[in-house]
Amino acid sequence: MVVVMAPGATPADVDAVVGSVRSAGGQAFVSRGLSRTIVGLVGDVADFEALNLGSLPGVLQVIRVSVPFKLVSREHHADRSVIRVGGVPIGPGTLTVIAGPCAVESPEQTLKAARLARSAGASLLRGGAFKPRTSPYSYQGLGEAGLRILAEVRAETGLPVVTEVIDPGSVDMVASYADMLQVGARNMQNFALLQAVGSAGKPVLLKRGFSATIEEWLSAAEYIAQRGNLDIVLCERGIRTFETATRNTLDISAVPVAQRLSHLPVIVDPSHSGGRRDLVVPLTRAAIAVGADGLLIDVHPEPKMALCDGDQALPESDIREIADIVATLPPVVGRELA
Amino acid sequence: MVVVMAPGATPADVDAVVGSVRSAGGQAFVSRGLSRTIVGLVGDVADFEALNLGSLPGVLQVIRVSVPFKLVSREHHADRSVIRVGGVPIGPGTLTVIAGPCAVESPEQTLKAARLARSAGASLLRGGAFKPRTSPYSYQGLGEAGLRILAEVRAETGLPVVTEVIDPGSVDMVASYADMLQVGARNMQNFALLQAVGSAGKPVLLKRGFSATIEEWLSAAEYIAQRGNLDIVLCERGIRTFETATRNTLDISAVPVAQRLSHLPVIVDPSHSGGRRDLVVPLTRAAIAVGADGLLIDVHPEPKMALCDGDQALPESDIREIADIVATLPPVVGRELA
Amino acid sequence: MVVVMAPGATPADVDAVVGSVRSAGGQAFVSRGLSRTIVGLVGDVADFEALNLGSLPGVLQVIRVSVPFKLVSREHHADRSVIRVGGVPIGPGTLTVIAGPCAVESPEQTLKAARLARSAGASLLRGGAFKPRTSPYSYQGLGEAGLRILAEVRAETGLPVVTEVIDPGSVDMVASYADMLQVGARNMQNFALLQAVGSAGKPVLLKRGFSATIEEWLSAAEYIAQRGNLDIVLCERGIRTFETATRNTLDISAVPVAQRLSHLPVIVDPSHSGGRRDLVVPLTRAAIAVGADGLLIDVHPEPKMALCDGDQALPESDIREIADIVATLPPVVGRELA
Amino acid sequence: MVVVMAPGATPADVDAVVGSVRSAGGQAFVSRGLSRTIVGLVGDVADFEALNLGSLPGVLQVIRVSVPFKLVSREHHADRSVIRVGGVPIGPGTLTVIAGPCAVESPEQTLKAARLARSAGASLLRGGAFKPRTSPYSYQGLGEAGLRILAEVRAETGLPVVTEVIDPGSVDMVASYADMLQVGARNMQNFALLQAVGSAGKPVLLKRGFSATIEEWLSAAEYIAQRGNLDIVLCERGIRTFETATRNTLDISAVPVAQRLSHLPVIVDPSHSGGRRDLVVPLTRAAIAVGADGLLIDVHPEPKMALCDGDQALPESDIREIADIVATLPPVVGRELA
Repeated sequence: MVVVMAPGATPADVDAVVGSVRSAGGQAFVSRGLSRTIVGLVGDVADFEALNLGSLPGVLQVIRVSVPFKLVSREHHADRSVIRVGGVPIGPGTLTVIAGPCAVESPEQTLKAARLARSAGASLLRGGAFKPRTSPYSYQGLGEAGLRILAEVRAETGLPVVTEVIDPGSVDMVASYADMLQVGARNMQNFALLQAVGSAGKPVLLKRGFSATIEEWLSAAEYIAQRGNLDIVLCERGIRTFETATRNTLDISAVPVAQRLSHLPVIVDPSHSGGRRDLVVPLTRAAIAVGADGLLIDVHPEPKMALCDGDQALPESDIREIADIVATLPPVVGRELA
Repeated sequence: MVVVMAPGATPADVDAVVGSVRSAGGQAFVSRGLSRTIVGLVGDVADFEALNLGSLPGVLQVIRVSVPFKLVSREHHADRSVIRVGGVPIGPGTLTVIAGPCAVESPEQTLKAARLARSAGASLLRGGAFKPRTSPYSYQGLGEAGLRILAEVRAETGLPVVTEVIDPGSVDMVASYADMLQVGARNMQNFALLQAVGSAGKPVLLKRGFSATIEEWLSAAEYIAQRGNLDIVLCERGIRTFETATRNTLDISAVPVAQRLSHLPVIVDPSHSGGRRDLVVPLTRAAIAVGADGLLIDVHPEPKMALCDGDQALPESDIREIADIVATLPPVVGRELA
Repeated sequence: MVVVMAPGATPADVDAVVGSVRSAGGQAFVSRGLSRTIVGLVGDVADFEALNLGSLPGVLQVIRVSVPFKLVSREHHADRSVIRVGGVPIGPGTLTVIAGPCAVESPEQTLKAARLARSAGASLLRGGAFKPRTSPYSYQGLGEAGLRILAEVRAETGLPVVTEVIDPGSVDMVASYADMLQVGARNMQNFALLQAVGSAGKPVLLKRGFSATIEEWLSAAEYIAQRGNLDIVLCERGIRTFETATRNTLDISAVPVAQRLSHLPVIVDPSHSGGRRDLVVPLTRAAIAVGADGLLIDVHPEPKMALCDGDQALPESDIREIADIVATLPPVVGRELA
Repeated sequence: MVVVMAPGATPADVDAVVGSVRSAGGQAFVSRGLSRTIVGLVGDVADFEALNLGSLPGVLQVIRVSVPFKLVSREHHADRSVIRVGGVPIGPGTLTVIAGPCAVESPEQTLKAARLARSAGASLLRGGAFKPRTSPYSYQGLGEAGLRILAEVRAETGLPVVTEVIDPGSVDMVASYADMLQVGARNMQNFALLQAVGSAGKPVLLKRGFSATIEEWLSAAEYIAQRGNLDIVLCERGIRTFETATRNTLDISAVPVAQRLSHLPVIVDPSHSGGRRDLVVPLTRAAIAVGADGLLIDVHPEPKMALCDGDQALPESDIREIADIVATLPPVVGRELA
């Protein structure tokens, strides 16, 4: 940590900061500059935070220079991790495609979507039974009946299932059906839910909140890791900006940035990022090229009948293009399709 | 709803849209322009949403022109509402101050903070027992022990209690202590929580998500209202922007905008908006002047010892200025201190 | 400046940083922490910037802790400044209203608007002859003919004139008509223009770019000040955020923040901030209450005939409310109408 | 255009809108919905804009459904354009690399950088002689002396020159040295400059403003096109968001979106987008994969000595990786290196 003193700070103000740090068992190094004096702190940041140094007289700013997460950090775990979901790897060296319908609507629709997913190159099936929707008047999902459908389709196709959980109280129930639990963007800082999935014994797919910084995203992962679960996959799905041509703005740089800060795999959702079907193919290409460890793609056998996000689901006719991309592009960047 | 056809849309494309709308029981009016043909829809928007009109050939854009909420809308309830919390009104005509410590730390600290709150003009006490924190290594609150402290301080001071709830599973327990349940910014789209507080039989303080549009905020309120609870107070607390001089950017315009769209009271949190103690006083003045129905202010008997957000808590020495403002400014804008 | 070393930085990396700083005539203080080593620099920041310390091996981050502006900073000029425009003061103690039409359209419209402005409490007249418009197909202004109209209306009403300049090549011509030169939001980082108005011998109204940080805004003012002109008034006019209910988001906190960083007066434009007529009155109240030194308001004798931004101009019927506010609210915050 | 009437609008209000539109020579189609009445307008949008329909009683909202640009739109020019700069094509089918130093510092540095650029696969040389810098205390460039250096290096290497112009008054002078004129992000809405480069007879590289929507970017291009110059290349270089891990957020989706709206080529600047050297390689890959028509890359023979943006310039050791990518990746997406 660095404490920056205000231009008018007195020597006594500086001494008070130094004294406060020392009383907490830390060390303080003072650099007196022409226009600013700064104090560098050495010791445990958690101890220093409780000091409220920003409240002391003459303090202009307190700058934290270390990252606020440990278990998910590459500083403590230099090699990038491979997470396995029902035997399927996600991590360096492979490109893993997770695909399926935004919402589970019926056994037939889900089975057809799973077959589309497989033909697109997917080795994991996604599908939502609990749908967090902005409006209470939008379709909210089939609930546990949807999970049973997913389990049947898994039995039929062999594809392990990734599905969203939205309530700490239903985590165990959902985990009894799912191979991987998804925490959605709106719940990225639902800390009760993060702790619950951290204890559920299943891998977790953690979507980035649409206004979360990368640091906040990794701090949310740390909540899961703290409960003993390091099988976490991060999913970039677009952030909220002023641009309205796309539903969100895919932060493609977040992939290499998160991979440098954390050992966890990072995948991309090209469907929700843009919210436009015509962008799924180019964003899929960009995600693979930038080095993503996987993809999360919406497919629906009949998008115009979809009960949720039909405007972005890829119909059968576009699946071939995705299949072609995931077959040919990964080797160019040193990966193979999982 | 309005469907905008792409420049190259064929007459058959337009007919397909019209046919789809009619099949759902709606009416469609076609305006053929020089560069665009538009189709105006008349009927129930919920029915039209299931049509996925955006997926039809030749459709460029689908624009919803009605608001996605009903129960909280002024269109269905023209007069602005007054909500009562333990007998204290929040709404037009009054300015209600809710104040207290960010986190309940001990009986002594909470009692002292409550007395500060009262001297600042507050008629409701805030205090957090469950703290949603970005980092799992930050202070997380006292839990139910904190609620007991709040109840004791209420008995001592007579101030009704506003406190945050973060987990659907603990809503009933928290409601057994609280006079008003707070849903924090990070949980604004935690729909399971919204539904739980909607059924808990207590008024709700709904903070705006720091990246939520006003429309999304009111849609979140609609989730609560749908469960039969219309005792909702909206709280603007700053949004996330590119500016880093303040922790968030107080969206002062959101107060009159939300008051025009919804009959619910709208208050302002000048403490979390800026995240800086030196901004609390000017933002308090701005909030009252713009027409806010109340304020939510952090006070702490000894900010430099605070376990949470100490940098923004107002110490005793600044309380007098707030007390003076809330006594003198409301009458200038046609309100009186509640 | 503070240099933060990466976790894996070697002692030789730290030595290289220290050596580089010393070679530039500076001093370097090293604090070796548990997870990070930091180096505090003492000396001239401009010298250090040329060192590209961020390029050295083992350097994680370089943090500047001083502000990048001097002449406009309160660090070098503690008292807040009063700027005079044609004898009218703008600064602490007063509230100065600048009002007039967005665009000068005709002598009659401008004279009527000036009279409206005066009845609203204005002591300065604004009006645009050169209009920077997003689309080349929108109205671009009357040019020099518009300036002649403004000069005539000044002669008739006695109101000094504030008008926008958009091209360094026409600054002298515009300055020959105007009492104050306005630099618009889109030109806030048009450095050639800033330098030209800095040399023109007239006070300057510098609007904040709609995506400029406060620090960038003050750096832009520094460009003007560097040419010897410290008669600068800053104008907050809304920033670009994700919220679409308003054209821009008025950053009300920017007023006290900028006033603490700089000695220059700060005014608010409640018309362009929201882009909605129904927000002008509440935002005017908020601006005065937060401590703004003045206001910039669009008025038009017949808004529905306006050639520019008619949706936000205040008609005669609303002027009375503004007049009432600027007469009664400033004394409550220790100011009087200029 | 679509006019949305407020819920309480009277039939007379609707009639007034219809009458106003007809008086301007347009047609109006009314759709009366359950909660909203909408009016679809047919005719010339420019005529309708002057009506200020938003000012009429009972009008809630006016929605423009056509794009505000024509000459640069694909609606009027369906085939994507190829622009030639000194004989080098930029457009569909090729990938064109423009590389060079951020700032021209000396003949030696520029020549070395040009050779690095060529070895990276570049066929055009970039280099700035006029540098728009946020702080007036940062390096501002060599001016015309820098242009002479660029011309000499072009003579030596055969690489045509792309260089920035920042002042309408110096456009002709800069054009006398340059093969392509660059308009920087901060000047994207400097309309006087856009008009000047539109008349200068040289191709233009138009960077996207860091807070400009895609629509505003294309409207800026329309200003250039209106002066008779359609040799425009668009450059996405990152937008301003809340994320601070990168200097800007590369809006990778903007490439396909802009290519669908406009026939102009779209290139990507992976250096300024991230502002971090370690992101240049992954973002280069992403840009090619998403379908960009070219790249703009900072290279410097000795980044730690660079006078401008040294932290992002690629040193010789990284050039090989870029060279490898631009040789192997374009064919995978149907392009060849220009």
